[in-house]
Amino acid sequence: MNVRARLSPMGLGEDEPRGRVAVVIDVIRASTTIVTALDAGARRVLPVESTGDAKARSEALGPARALLCGERGGRPIPGFDLGNSPLEFTRERVEDRDIVITTSNGTRALARSRGAEAVLVACLVNLEAVREELVRRGRPVLVVCAGRGGRVGLDDVWCAGLLVERLRETESFEADDGARVALETARGLGAPSAEALAATEAGAALVRIGFGTDLERCASLDASGTVPTLTGEGLVAAGAAA
Amino acid sequence: MNVRARLSPMGLGEDEPRGRVAVVIDVIRASTTIVTALDAGARRVLPVESTGDAKARSEALGPARALLCGERGGRPIPGFDLGNSPLEFTRERVEDRDIVITTSNGTRALARSRGAEAVLVACLVNLEAVREELVRRGRPVLVVCAGRGGRVGLDDVWCAGLLVERLRETESFEADDGARVALETARGLGAPSAEALAATEAGAALVRIGFGTDLERCASLDASGTVPTLTGEGLVAAGAAA
Repeated sequence: MNVRARLSPMGLGEDEPRGRVAVVIDVIRASTTIVTALDAGARRVLPVESTGDAKARSEALGPARALLCGERGGRPIPGFDLGNSPLEFTRERVEDRDIVITTSNGTRALARSRGAEAVLVACLVNLEAVREELVRRGRPVLVVCAGRGGRVGLDDVWCAGLLVERLRETESFEADDGARVALETARGLGAPSAEALAATEAGAALVRIGFGTDLERCASLDASGTVPTLTGEGLVAAGAAA
Repeated sequence: MNVRARLSPMGLGEDEPRGRVAVVIDVIRASTTIVTALDAGARRVLPVESTGDAKARSEALGPARALLCGERGGRPIPGFDLGNSPLEFTRERVEDRDIVITTSNGTRALARSRGAEAVLVACLVNLEAVREELVRRGRPVLVVCAGRGGRVGLDDVWCAGLLVERLRETESFEADDGARVALETARGLGAPSAEALAATEAGAALVRIGFGTDLERCASLDASGTVPTLTGEGLVAAGAAA
C-alpha cells in the first residue's frame, strides 16, 4: 500500500487527493467528536467551514432535525446547541439528529480532501477500524493531519504515525517523507495517553480552557468501530455508507 | 532555550520569526551549497526568489564580481554560471565572488524568515557550529525547514531534530509540537548517511537526475564551522558578520 501523509493541510495540493482514500485526522478534537456523535446514534455529521454556513444549514434543516455545533478557540459558539467536546455528544442529545458542525481546523482539512476517491475520518478512538477499512478498499492512501492554524499538531502526527505503523505489513508498502516523519514520531512516543496528549499544544490549550477531561476520550485507542465516511449527505458511519 | 520548529515554510505566520533567531534548513541542497560556497571563500551569498531577480542582481554587480547560480527542478538553469550542487562551489570558482543564487525551496524559506532577530543557515555540515552560535546568542529559536513545494522533507526534519536534540541540554529547554516531531524523527533515524539521504524524497529525486554524489557532502555531519548569517549585504560567514 502506498501511503502519503500531509502533516498539515497547508501544503496539500488540489490534485493530491485524487485517486487516493483520504484519511482526515484531528485528534483534539473534531475527529474524536465526529466518531463519538455517530457512535451515539447521530444520523449524519455535516462539517461546514464558517459559523454563518453552520447557522444557515441548520436553519434549512429545521431545529427538530439539526443540532448546531462547533467551536472557535476551543470554546462553544454562543447560540449554538453544542460545542466540540465529545462528552457533550450523548445519545440523549444526538440520536437521529443531523449534526451541523464547524471547527477551527478539522473542517478545513475535510474541505481540502474532497477530491479524494473517498474521505474517512480517523482519530485514536477508531484507528483499527480505519485501518481495516483502508485494507478493505486496497487503494493508495493520503493521510491529512488537521494541525493547528496551518502548523503541525503533535497529536495528529502521532495518530497518523500509529496508522502508518499498522499499515506497514500491507503488500508493497511505500511511505513518503510525511508518512515516515509520522511513523518515527509515533514510534518514539509509544502508546498515547490522556497525560501525553495534555503535553501537546492542542491538549495543553484544552486543559487551559477547562476541557481537560475530553482528553480521556481522545486517547481511548480503538474504542470504536465507527469509520465516518464522507458522502453527498455528509459524514455517515461506514456501515450506513456502504 | 525555547525552540519552535516549522516543518515547512507554508504554515509560518508573518509574526512568528519576531524576537527569535531563525535557523533555515535545506539539507538537499541549498543550505549545504551556501555553507560550502562560504567555506570556499565566497565573499557573500545573495539568495533571491526568481530567476529574473537573480539575473538582474547579477548584472548590477557585474560579471567580474557576481556568479549567477541556482536550480529549478534540481537542474542548473540555462545561461547561469553554476547550478546548486555543492561540488561545483570550489575555491577556484567562487573565491572573493558574490554568489547570486535562486533555489526552489531554500530561498523561499529564507525570505519568510526575514522578520527574525537574526537568520542563520543550517544543514548537517555545519550543525554543531550553528548550535554553538545559538547558545552564544541565547535567544528563542525558530527552526524553519525548507521542505519540498510546501510539504515536509524528511532530510530537513531529520536535521532539525538533530539540532533540537543538541539544544536539549540548554537551560529552560522548551520545544513546541513541531520541534518534538523533528526530535522523534531524528532519534528514530539515528546518524545520517549519504545512503539514508538517498532514500528521502529530495535525495531520490537528486539521484534520478544524476546528482547522487552531492549526497556525500550533504551528509557530512559537522564538517564545517561556518554559520551563514543574513545581513543587509546578504549571507556572510558568521565571523565576518560579527
